[in-house]
Amino acid sequence: MKLAVDAMGGDNAPDVVIAGVERARNELPDLEVTLFGDETKIKPLIKDASRLTIVHTTEKIESDDEPVRAVRRKKQASMILAAQAVKDGQADAVFSLGSTGALLAAGLFIVGRIRGIDRPGLMPTMPSTTNDTGFVMLDVGANADNRAYQLLQYAIMGNFYAKDVRGVTNPRIALLNNGSEANKGDAMHQEAYQLLSENADLNFIGNIESDQLLLGKADVVVTDGFTGNAALKSIEGTARTILHLVKDAITDGGVKGKLGGLFLQGSLRSLASKFDVSSYGGAVLLGLKAPVIKAHGGADADAVYYTVKQIEAMVKAQTIPQVVSYFESHDIQPKKAEE
Amino acid sequence: MKLAVDAMGGDNAPDVVIAGVERARNELPDLEVTLFGDETKIKPLIKDASRLTIVHTTEKIESDDEPVRAVRRKKQASMILAAQAVKDGQADAVFSLGSTGALLAAGLFIVGRIRGIDRPGLMPTMPSTTNDTGFVMLDVGANADNRAYQLLQYAIMGNFYAKDVRGVTNPRIALLNNGSEANKGDAMHQEAYQLLSENADLNFIGNIESDQLLLGKADVVVTDGFTGNAALKSIEGTARTILHLVKDAITDGGVKGKLGGLFLQGSLRSLASKFDVSSYGGAVLLGLKAPVIKAHGGADADAVYYTVKQIEAMVKAQTIPQVVSYFESHDIQPKKAEE
Repeated sequence: MKLAVDAMGGDNAPDVVIAGVERARNELPDLEVTLFGDETKIKPLIKDASRLTIVHTTEKIESDDEPVRAVRRKKQASMILAAQAVKDGQADAVFSLGSTGALLAAGLFIVGRIRGIDRPGLMPTMPSTTNDTGFVMLDVGANADNRAYQLLQYAIMGNFYAKDVRGVTNPRIALLNNGSEANKGDAMHQEAYQLLSENADLNFIGNIESDQLLLGKADVVVTDGFTGNAALKSIEGTARTILHLVKDAITDGGVKGKLGGLFLQGSLRSLASKFDVSSYGGAVLLGLKAPVIKAHGGADADAVYYTVKQIEAMVKAQTIPQVVSYFESHDIQPKKAEE
Repeated sequence: MKLAVDAMGGDNAPDVVIAGVERARNELPDLEVTLFGDETKIKPLIKDASRLTIVHTTEKIESDDEPVRAVRRKKQASMILAAQAVKDGQADAVFSLGSTGALLAAGLFIVGRIRGIDRPGLMPTMPSTTNDTGFVMLDVGANADNRAYQLLQYAIMGNFYAKDVRGVTNPRIALLNNGSEANKGDAMHQEAYQLLSENADLNFIGNIESDQLLLGKADVVVTDGFTGNAALKSIEGTARTILHLVKDAITDGGVKGKLGGLFLQGSLRSLASKFDVSSYGGAVLLGLKAPVIKAHGGADADAVYYTVKQIEAMVKAQTIPQVVSYFESHDIQPKKAEE
């Protein structure tokens, strides 16, 4: 696999990017990486240059840049050059820790949408208490407003991904909704429920409420981008808050607290790592002509390593070509009346 | 205050209802309670009958009853009789631990909407890490679909409540959205942002993202019922899941884990109680002509006690009359073009 990496995106770039990429390169004999970014910063960090190429650029998209404008104007930015490499056929996939909005814009304008899909969705892998594979959920915020047939497109794409990359046989697909019954939700969610039920290619198990997400009841959760974003951020914020409070309880608990913390250290660390999404890889921008993957801006070298492995699995499994081929033979579009 | 209580709603009724009500009655000299439910079950539980009246009924709305139908057909159900007592002027407020949907229907059809408000919102009080008052959020699921001007109505009602009942001076009002900038969200949320900004009666501080909810940055969070429901349930589910995993880490951690748990017991218990929403009282169905309050079906006697105190504060503060009067002199309705 040839991977185009935006080496300058994220809070700890390029250090963690280079460290994670090198670790993945050491493990994956077929991996060739092009690093886009400031050569003067990247080069001193590289321990072994095998199968690593640097394309030098000093331009960079900042987190407060307006995404679409940044993509249109900063033609020499590391993220843009990485996306361009995929478009030009020089790379199979693009990976960045930079601005989600800009990467989405670069994906849409440079890499391009798969024919038949009009709204790519952002899909992270989330933890579950009952298994180690977790589940995927999309869209979690690439769109502020989705229509029902787009949720069906998400289900189909997520289904391919769960089977091929996460190794789930017959993935359980659920719709995030405000109740378990079929008639729950607004008109859009009721229509999405209907479309998902009718599709014979999917193992649709019905609605899932957001307090059930972490319990491992579904392998693919489909949602509109606005609700998905609210659910994802609520989960992240609550997990962070509570784990922080547990830590405070230990620190502020005097001698008793500190002793307790010492005894529990191992167990609590493994719990924190369970809710550390970095080990589940990056979020895939699904619906584009090539894998476009975004890792968290605060990701560390481990997260970069896991994400590169995830991208390799996705390229090897030919997830995107399968999605392309599915949508060539299946027309999933709004009903005429909606046009 | 005269309070109408559905003594039969909830998982542990009537036991916890009676115990909580008696404790509140012992503390609040002005409280008179009418308990609606099965006298043969209620009477043996009562320790002191002062200021308690029982209205006997054996009919009950079950959690799987279709709400609107149940309200229309089960005219003698404890919840319906309690709501009817408010409508007839025999009680100032109604309190139930039963089905949220049925209580919403009873509120709409029996107690009735405040003139000028077309969609009452469900408003729980939620914990925050930075203060003990927490914050209120509405709507969290009374509606599946809201329009922008309804969110402005929620803000105004929540503002009165935060000031009068929660004792917050100049409450900070925020809009739950998928980003902090003014132009974030779908068209409805952008319009809601605009309406909230323009209203001179509100201290609108802008958008809040759901990972920031628990950090105490706002006193009143307004949201459409679908997103609010997803955020609330994500927070509840994640808190429950993580606290459960912490408990597992202690139990499964062998001798070390158990010792650690022993040392940390006190601190962890206070943490769990922080995220035990019961101590914050029940959720208010705001927008009805009288306080209609719903406590969790699994609530215990403490939660019932706190909720009765909360209702008394709301009645004493004249929150509803203030809301009624505000909407008599302020017409908050959709723009003409939207009709």
